[in-house]
Amino acid sequence: MTIHADGRSLDVVGIGNAIVDVLVSSDDAFLEKHGLNKGGMALVDAEQARALYEAAGPGLETSGGSAANTLAGLAQLGVRAGFIGRVRDDQLGAIFSHDIRSVGARFETPAASTGAATARCLILVTPDAQRTMCTYLGASVDLEPADLDLDLVRQAGMLYLEGYLWDGEAAKRAFLAAAEVMRATGGQVALSLSDAFCVERHRQSFQELVDGHVDVLFANEAEITALYQCDGFEAAMEQVRGRCAIAVLTRGALGSVVLGNGQVHRIDPWVLGPLVDTTGAGDLYASGFLYGLTRGETLERCGQLGSLCAGQVITQLGPRPRASLPQLVAEHLG
Amino acid sequence: MTIHADGRSLDVVGIGNAIVDVLVSSDDAFLEKHGLNKGGMALVDAEQARALYEAAGPGLETSGGSAANTLAGLAQLGVRAGFIGRVRDDQLGAIFSHDIRSVGARFETPAASTGAATARCLILVTPDAQRTMCTYLGASVDLEPADLDLDLVRQAGMLYLEGYLWDGEAAKRAFLAAAEVMRATGGQVALSLSDAFCVERHRQSFQELVDGHVDVLFANEAEITALYQCDGFEAAMEQVRGRCAIAVLTRGALGSVVLGNGQVHRIDPWVLGPLVDTTGAGDLYASGFLYGLTRGETLERCGQLGSLCAGQVITQLGPRPRASLPQLVAEHLG
Repeated sequence: MTIHADGRSLDVVGIGNAIVDVLVSSDDAFLEKHGLNKGGMALVDAEQARALYEAAGPGLETSGGSAANTLAGLAQLGVRAGFIGRVRDDQLGAIFSHDIRSVGARFETPAASTGAATARCLILVTPDAQRTMCTYLGASVDLEPADLDLDLVRQAGMLYLEGYLWDGEAAKRAFLAAAEVMRATGGQVALSLSDAFCVERHRQSFQELVDGHVDVLFANEAEITALYQCDGFEAAMEQVRGRCAIAVLTRGALGSVVLGNGQVHRIDPWVLGPLVDTTGAGDLYASGFLYGLTRGETLERCGQLGSLCAGQVITQLGPRPRASLPQLVAEHLG
Repeated sequence: MTIHADGRSLDVVGIGNAIVDVLVSSDDAFLEKHGLNKGGMALVDAEQARALYEAAGPGLETSGGSAANTLAGLAQLGVRAGFIGRVRDDQLGAIFSHDIRSVGARFETPAASTGAATARCLILVTPDAQRTMCTYLGASVDLEPADLDLDLVRQAGMLYLEGYLWDGEAAKRAFLAAAEVMRATGGQVALSLSDAFCVERHRQSFQELVDGHVDVLFANEAEITALYQCDGFEAAMEQVRGRCAIAVLTRGALGSVVLGNGQVHRIDPWVLGPLVDTTGAGDLYASGFLYGLTRGETLERCGQLGSLCAGQVITQLGPRPRASLPQLVAEHLG
């Protein structure tokens, strides 16, 4: 382990659901038949997961999980990244563990030897490149304070949390415990709201979390308007202003807005090729943004880095960039 | 089960290794460091598989297996297809089973409840789109006559075999037993030689098999020259001529040659887009060709159908077409 001048061995540590994605080409009729909200994330139990998978077409499996995608992207960019999440000691757990370690992230949460299988997310990709997710949380939801490597948290300058964890009581407690440790060591806390339906389920506690613990907030348009029950984007933007040091609001093809230091930066989306699959767009935006932040870049530049990384991942299937992000950054923002 | 006018319920039944592929972006230096022959298939044991996987980058998992890819392609094209192969009752086995059934192929070989894990093939894709494979045969190699659903074989008009099975003694016996049943019911036997190194390992018995049992032979240039120890493609072509009713010889970017009915048909390659990954090119050529054959098309047309399907699969990552093959055929050869 290398301890740098800042006395820390990691730049960012993330806590999230450790998930393997199953990407399947689908269509609107399938979503309708199975009562799925296009673009959203639905939680399913083991039996529903089995039935949906059986009905779906052939899949492509790849490591996923929102915070895990962000941390894998950060590691690829050369940021010292660690991840905390819970898999089972099964084949999908081995795939998840290999993939995140193989890009250089630290992942040391012990695989559970009993209980539910490694989490899976059936991602139905429609011809318009939208993704609709059905998540079986499996082992992932049982993440609890005892699993939490607080030493790993203490080694990092920033803690990154995904809102999806809010759906599990134990995971939520682990999440808050880690945030308090991070604050106590003088580090920063970043949160991604993850999903508008998840925000609907936990609005009150998300508002308290943002006010009390969050330095950097990531949300897309649906999430931020759900959080403050606003009619439009501009109204939601006014609501969040000043509640945390930095708010990063993404709007898909409309680009993104970064609020911080009393300023508003509007960032263009980055178009690198035909749109294939939006899975991981928000996660990789966060990778690029936090990469910039750890290097002390301006907020505008951080937004551009986020936009570039998101722009890459939507030109491919799946949420883990197969192109070289450092090369991309050197080419476009070098 | 639908029994058609021909008294059979299946057009083609395949026997092969039931494998899940792990696709990893790699480079020549990695191949050299690990002593791997570019473009070839090496067999590895569980420990070698673990070590190679650990050294490799993040992967994308997708169902594979040479004959399984061919049968999945056939099923997608509307051919009544069945597959026989052995998985373990583990997560990768469930993925393999789902994927082949989800395109409409019959797959009823019971998953083994003991023994080695489901077979995995680490496929290293280099920037030139070549693939180099390291296969851990796992449960797949234990396919034996007892696993063989001879009823399924009897229901089909054609038996399709992959040469890779020759690497397992029990699988080889299962393979010959099925070929004899197929001949006895008046059906045809097709064989794909699979890999030049596999041909080197079993040259004599492959020659006997071709002479004694095979109606339709698929081979690429390296395989057919290895089989007859010829210096060049034209010499190998002369050697195979007349040894089986139809010989289909593929040559990558040089196109393919179909020998049959005393004629030689030279077929152009089909270029549908930039070359991404050659995994599955030969397997999907066989899908297109046999699709044509089951519909009574001319040999030239069968070759064009093979070339088209191969042309599609090399424009994507992985050996199972994510584009609609029936739509492709309607557009280009309708």
